[in-house]
Amino acid sequence: MNSKITWLRNAMTSLNLQGMIISNPVNIKYLTGIDAEGMLLITRKENVYITDGRYIEYAHSILTLFDEIIVYNYTDMSQEDYENFFMFCENVGFEESYVTYAKYKEYMHKFKVNSLVETDNLIEKQRIIKDEEEIKNLKTACEITDNCFSYIIKFIKPGMTEKEIAREIDNFYNENAEGVSFETIVASGENSSKPHAVPTDRKIEEQDIITIDMGCKYNGYCSDMTRTIFVGSVPEDIKKIYDIVLKSQQQALDEMKDGAIIRQIAKNVDTNFRFYNYDLIHALGHGVGMEIHERPYISMNNDTLLKENMVVTDEPGIYIPGKYGVRIEDTVLITKFGCISLTESAKNYIII
Amino acid sequence: MNSKITWLRNAMTSLNLQGMIISNPVNIKYLTGIDAEGMLLITRKENVYITDGRYIEYAHSILTLFDEIIVYNYTDMSQEDYENFFMFCENVGFEESYVTYAKYKEYMHKFKVNSLVETDNLIEKQRIIKDEEEIKNLKTACEITDNCFSYIIKFIKPGMTEKEIAREIDNFYNENAEGVSFETIVASGENSSKPHAVPTDRKIEEQDIITIDMGCKYNGYCSDMTRTIFVGSVPEDIKKIYDIVLKSQQQALDEMKDGAIIRQIAKNVDTNFRFYNYDLIHALGHGVGMEIHERPYISMNNDTLLKENMVVTDEPGIYIPGKYGVRIEDTVLITKFGCISLTESAKNYIII
Repeated sequence: MNSKITWLRNAMTSLNLQGMIISNPVNIKYLTGIDAEGMLLITRKENVYITDGRYIEYAHSILTLFDEIIVYNYTDMSQEDYENFFMFCENVGFEESYVTYAKYKEYMHKFKVNSLVETDNLIEKQRIIKDEEEIKNLKTACEITDNCFSYIIKFIKPGMTEKEIAREIDNFYNENAEGVSFETIVASGENSSKPHAVPTDRKIEEQDIITIDMGCKYNGYCSDMTRTIFVGSVPEDIKKIYDIVLKSQQQALDEMKDGAIIRQIAKNVDTNFRFYNYDLIHALGHGVGMEIHERPYISMNNDTLLKENMVVTDEPGIYIPGKYGVRIEDTVLITKFGCISLTESAKNYIII
Repeated sequence: MNSKITWLRNAMTSLNLQGMIISNPVNIKYLTGIDAEGMLLITRKENVYITDGRYIEYAHSILTLFDEIIVYNYTDMSQEDYENFFMFCENVGFEESYVTYAKYKEYMHKFKVNSLVETDNLIEKQRIIKDEEEIKNLKTACEITDNCFSYIIKFIKPGMTEKEIAREIDNFYNENAEGVSFETIVASGENSSKPHAVPTDRKIEEQDIITIDMGCKYNGYCSDMTRTIFVGSVPEDIKKIYDIVLKSQQQALDEMKDGAIIRQIAKNVDTNFRFYNYDLIHALGHGVGMEIHERPYISMNNDTLLKENMVVTDEPGIYIPGKYGVRIEDTVLITKFGCISLTESAKNYIII
């Protein structure tokens, strides 16, 4: 059996689950490699993937004998088949944070399971710790993003619109990766004061500040990086803010390692900001993996610890409403002795 | 109060609901115009939209006094505030097909509601019938798609890859609309045999067949259209299939009107196909609105009737595995006396 399903079966045993229904397609891809629409059942005796005609051939092409997963077409399944899967199971787990209330009731009915129990994001929590292959993919996604950034800072010229720049980034990712991992942000001038700006038709001007937040997918894994760059020169008032953000970002990097308390890292950045009368108005970062935003969330509300082989972002930002904003973000790998930045683009003043 | 919330309040009364929690952002946008992250509460006395700091200003900019919706920042809300919303409510509705099981439990706790009841897709079902403004938006989205198609058939040349063509379509939509309403399909040669093909690096060749399935968003409303076109000439074997698909598509259009039984329309296409030894392997169509796939689903499993001012697609397809496929799709408006195609692109043999 593949190592991830072996892990899941062990985890289920310790939770007294004799069966589990996995519906979240990201979790199914994590466990099986299959990226399609379907349902994975872990039963007492076997592992079963149920899908429709469109994906049967594909599922077989992904799985090996070693996976020990039987593929069924749902049109071939009877009500009796469904009821047999979890016969004599005391507790069957389901993904309560993915499955809708309506689906939950449908499962109860379809599988005739009396005790469908919550699994407290069991698989999502396991996904926090990346294995060697996952780290390789994340590293490559970050490299492609560094390359894209090198390309784009040469491409940007005054007179271009934010949308044109965002489109060029998207095209780069379409050609060199599996496309973007989230909607590219290119926010110039006063637009940079909005943390979640959407690219507009605003044209880049001399003396502008531009925040670019971008990432791609490689082998199903995401990258995430932000740089705030300058056109022509660095205005004195913005320089001050840039320095505070960069210093805080660097400080968090210095603190990120196995065993560090997440809350404390975010708190320290907030304290820094407050010293200069600014606030940390969004989370300091988040996990990155098959999804662009994953656990652990790096914020002052998170009392857990960083652990070896987590991959997280460090992205403090200061935003002056209606004027400008600065955000600097790297994606980093947590190790026993510190963190290794997977993002390698420069963070000094970048003037184009 | 705005007309859509007035409708909802009346519907709630007839379902004996004294309150309702609306979480699906598409439904919230439909009822309020607000396109953000938040929660809409319909309580005995008031309508409340709860969001976070990022969207407060925006929400106020969308709403008018006429809407009678109070906007709150969730950071200003206490546990007591939440408990007060539905005090003395016998039944409070929630969206069981959108809300996860975990959220359902959270709502029970947060609002201290004993009877949180399912609402059987109340709002989604209302969204099936479009009003005048919605129809105008859908019509414009379809017009932009017709224009994009006229543009793209002049753009395509042998030697280009499917990805390049798809990217050009996406760029057209980014410039002339609010981007795509779903991932553009450009499937050439044998790739056209897959109904859900993803654009590849395959280069267009002389004598190719190309299926293009595309749509954009305009004012939040979607368009959806498919054409299968030919490079150089129409091979005799494919011509035969094209004619069967087009004839069936036209027949369904002729049958689509207020009062028509959806199941029967799909069944008739299937019967046509079977006469020639082919199958209708996917649904014949679907509703189109704020979402690209909405109710009603036009399939042999749907026993409901078409109604005036529904907007649906008609998209039969025949696929010969490993060889080629043909699909032709229009988006149409249902009226009392027939349907009006919002898609106007030609459906005769298109040879580039």
